[in-house]
Amino acid sequence: MTDLIKIVIAGPRGRMGQEAVKLVEETENFQLVAVIDHKNNGRKLADIFPTTQSQVKVYTDIEDCFQNEQADVLIDLTTPETGYLHTKTALLHGVRPVVGTTGFTQDELTELKNLAEEKELGCIIAPNFAIGAILMMKFSQMAAKYFPDVEIMEMHHDQKLDAPSGTAVKTAEMIKENRLSHQQGHEDEKETIGGARGADYDGMRIHSVRLPGLVAHQQVLFGAEGQTLTIRHDSYNRASFMSGVKVSVETIMSLDTLVYGLEHILV
Amino acid sequence: MTDLIKIVIAGPRGRMGQEAVKLVEETENFQLVAVIDHKNNGRKLADIFPTTQSQVKVYTDIEDCFQNEQADVLIDLTTPETGYLHTKTALLHGVRPVVGTTGFTQDELTELKNLAEEKELGCIIAPNFAIGAILMMKFSQMAAKYFPDVEIMEMHHDQKLDAPSGTAVKTAEMIKENRLSHQQGHEDEKETIGGARGADYDGMRIHSVRLPGLVAHQQVLFGAEGQTLTIRHDSYNRASFMSGVKVSVETIMSLDTLVYGLEHILV
Amino acid sequence: MTDLIKIVIAGPRGRMGQEAVKLVEETENFQLVAVIDHKNNGRKLADIFPTTQSQVKVYTDIEDCFQNEQADVLIDLTTPETGYLHTKTALLHGVRPVVGTTGFTQDELTELKNLAEEKELGCIIAPNFAIGAILMMKFSQMAAKYFPDVEIMEMHHDQKLDAPSGTAVKTAEMIKENRLSHQQGHEDEKETIGGARGADYDGMRIHSVRLPGLVAHQQVLFGAEGQTLTIRHDSYNRASFMSGVKVSVETIMSLDTLVYGLEHILV
Amino acid sequence: MTDLIKIVIAGPRGRMGQEAVKLVEETENFQLVAVIDHKNNGRKLADIFPTTQSQVKVYTDIEDCFQNEQADVLIDLTTPETGYLHTKTALLHGVRPVVGTTGFTQDELTELKNLAEEKELGCIIAPNFAIGAILMMKFSQMAAKYFPDVEIMEMHHDQKLDAPSGTAVKTAEMIKENRLSHQQGHEDEKETIGGARGADYDGMRIHSVRLPGLVAHQQVLFGAEGQTLTIRHDSYNRASFMSGVKVSVETIMSLDTLVYGLEHILV
Repeated sequence: MTDLIKIVIAGPRGRMGQEAVKLVEETENFQLVAVIDHKNNGRKLADIFPTTQSQVKVYTDIEDCFQNEQADVLIDLTTPETGYLHTKTALLHGVRPVVGTTGFTQDELTELKNLAEEKELGCIIAPNFAIGAILMMKFSQMAAKYFPDVEIMEMHHDQKLDAPSGTAVKTAEMIKENRLSHQQGHEDEKETIGGARGADYDGMRIHSVRLPGLVAHQQVLFGAEGQTLTIRHDSYNRASFMSGVKVSVETIMSLDTLVYGLEHILV
Repeated sequence: MTDLIKIVIAGPRGRMGQEAVKLVEETENFQLVAVIDHKNNGRKLADIFPTTQSQVKVYTDIEDCFQNEQADVLIDLTTPETGYLHTKTALLHGVRPVVGTTGFTQDELTELKNLAEEKELGCIIAPNFAIGAILMMKFSQMAAKYFPDVEIMEMHHDQKLDAPSGTAVKTAEMIKENRLSHQQGHEDEKETIGGARGADYDGMRIHSVRLPGLVAHQQVLFGAEGQTLTIRHDSYNRASFMSGVKVSVETIMSLDTLVYGLEHILV
Repeated sequence: MTDLIKIVIAGPRGRMGQEAVKLVEETENFQLVAVIDHKNNGRKLADIFPTTQSQVKVYTDIEDCFQNEQADVLIDLTTPETGYLHTKTALLHGVRPVVGTTGFTQDELTELKNLAEEKELGCIIAPNFAIGAILMMKFSQMAAKYFPDVEIMEMHHDQKLDAPSGTAVKTAEMIKENRLSHQQGHEDEKETIGGARGADYDGMRIHSVRLPGLVAHQQVLFGAEGQTLTIRHDSYNRASFMSGVKVSVETIMSLDTLVYGLEHILV
Repeated sequence: MTDLIKIVIAGPRGRMGQEAVKLVEETENFQLVAVIDHKNNGRKLADIFPTTQSQVKVYTDIEDCFQNEQADVLIDLTTPETGYLHTKTALLHGVRPVVGTTGFTQDELTELKNLAEEKELGCIIAPNFAIGAILMMKFSQMAAKYFPDVEIMEMHHDQKLDAPSGTAVKTAEMIKENRLSHQQGHEDEKETIGGARGADYDGMRIHSVRLPGLVAHQQVLFGAEGQTLTIRHDSYNRASFMSGVKVSVETIMSLDTLVYGLEHILV
């Protein structure tokens, strides 16, 4: 039998937080013991959050929470500033943090890493919890050893401002570690309309598609004599992140250090 | 019963010509009556071309050929210069030309068009005989009326020099005729690596992928609120052109003018 | 300038109805004049439906509505039984119905068709308003004339009960009208595990994929010597239906008969 | 600097053999030292095989060959019977075999394995040398740990007799090792046309598409809440196998046992 894991969620009313509450309630060996919100201290979760019947208590003060509740894991889905304080406080109270915010400084990460090791507690900080996206990046990195010619196509809704996407650049960085560096395409190739060949990253090409209707999709295409290999991830909605939160909570109980990025605990 | 169509092939030893000989031999109501080659005058086709048993005669002079052979259609797979002379000579002898070469001047096209109309004969000149590619372009043009947001991804082997491909530009031109012209993507979008958003054609984007292993592929992706529509053509080898030659030969018997581009006789 | 089209929506609180209210409010030459609901008579829409500020009146009786409000078009997103009565009543009052429910009997359709023609009013009844899906079916039908070998892959979430999907069967029916009927695959082909080759519809094959995460997707794949042509529709959410409702409202003003299925007014 | 690897090719005139000769000639640290053919003993390769200028000697007797030529590796692309004898003879002469034939009996494999270990020599026997196909299978196996819902679509030309393909079944077997066994799809799902849901393999579904124009393609589709992950391999021609032969030759120098299947030496 799997032991029950007692969980506190910080940020339960945000979009990710709502999904996390649902995840914990639906997972057999997960138990929600409290939530941390910036208001509503002392009320019941069901009172402030109509889609649940949960009677766990709402705390506005994280110290207060950990002094009154027995918890194994904190799932933090707040902001970078709050997230840093929450992570530190959790570790000091012997609670393992699973953190879904980015934007920590290098100093903060170093401090948290040292603290986790001192306390011999797992701590997972992940900019991306979609397991499919992580596997796409890992597999692409592995394939690059055998297929040094690769192009990345990422496709997002047309409200996205930056091109290429952060995931595409991260994928290219990971591929670069395994790929024999070289300029791809014919050495005399010529763009008759500028930009046709996409963004150049260490000789690889990245193409960014933006259209209404799209959500978040990425395809990594490898080519070699007589064959192509395609690795693709399609994310349709926020629920895709919850599989990564689940694996993190399950994994963190056997860690004793800080892990940055789910790619280090998968596969 | 369908009437027998008597066919002369010019350029039978080239890659396309070989496929055309095979096509005519394998099609029930097509009959090969002679071939035109720049050498081997008077020999039998089987003597110069080992993969056929055909005993039809080889002519080096096209006048000579049409004076001695009764033909309905000339399939010309030679060069632009030769193609022009062959097309003109065929029309003067009452033979309908199906021509697979590009590079005719506007004056030549006008002259051939006038001649075809004067003789009341069909004449088909097609830069691209792959029916799938033609349908992809036609359907894309039709869809653009309802989906004004569209991006084109074309994928070719890495020995291709130009980007975007001629087919991609032709597709964009055809879409433009039906699409409400506008700049796509977010008005504040920003390329953090230049070229990520591809080539800009009237506000649409075209992306050119070049990888070993690829042959010739194109995908047209339309997006609208909550949905996407994809139209894709994959060409794996030269045999793909023969379906277009076949339709052309079948159609030309009922035409009485010059048609430039298969898109005008399909659908 | 385009004339203003005055619209009544029946069923404004359902999922489709909510999207329709949003569509009418966001479209420049559309004007919402009233809604029909089975309760809340006499209230304002904004009172019963918090995501809008609309002050139009709620009617529970459709006769009452059309006697008091000047309307050009009724958008009906209710149930088959109610839909029939609404459609008939609208036509009798000179209002053009755009109806998104299925399940009318053949007798009801005949009666409504006669009524529309007698009144010289447009009437559009559409089982599927996703324009991309309609175009996929139309283009597939057109392509089948040149590509008689075709397989359909439809992919849906794993809560769907029926396989193949209604859209897949409808697509196969439309293809059948244009396709040279024949059994596909090798005549000696053998399934080593039953079902591998999918469902047989007039010699074509249909494959139904069911997985969590999927929404509603269909791909029609045509093959011929050396090439394939793919036509694919991805539907991500209900908003995809609204483009079809919009085109219907715009088109209905110039119709004078009943049209069943959007495929008859597109392309 | 990489050491030169001296190579003998058995079966140089077959389709795979021709590609292998080309591969060895084009790879910098590979050197062709002889070929083994069932006829033409004592002639030069260039004399019997017009597309090469190679002056290496043709042997019909493998013993004779290894007594006269210094070789590191034998690439065997013959038949199962011949392949077994060649493999055994090579090992006895201290030459490492890379074997591309299938159909060895279990007894033969055991004998060859024991011999390789006794001689402390690498020996690679691979039913499939297309690295992309191997990676597709490996990655699918790895992903199944996190995505227990998966369907396989394999697509081949319509001259293929068996469905599902051997690669699809092999992929399903590998996935099964990592996947939580369960029946997929809704428990009340119903096929309105038999076979729609494909072949059932341990609760997973496999779909086999057969169309003219297709070559050899397979897509493995994983679904989870809000996301899908796709791993796809497209094989366009026989050259795709040569990347696997190359990796095998490079890897075999550091092996001291028999490896069956490239999946054990990649990644």
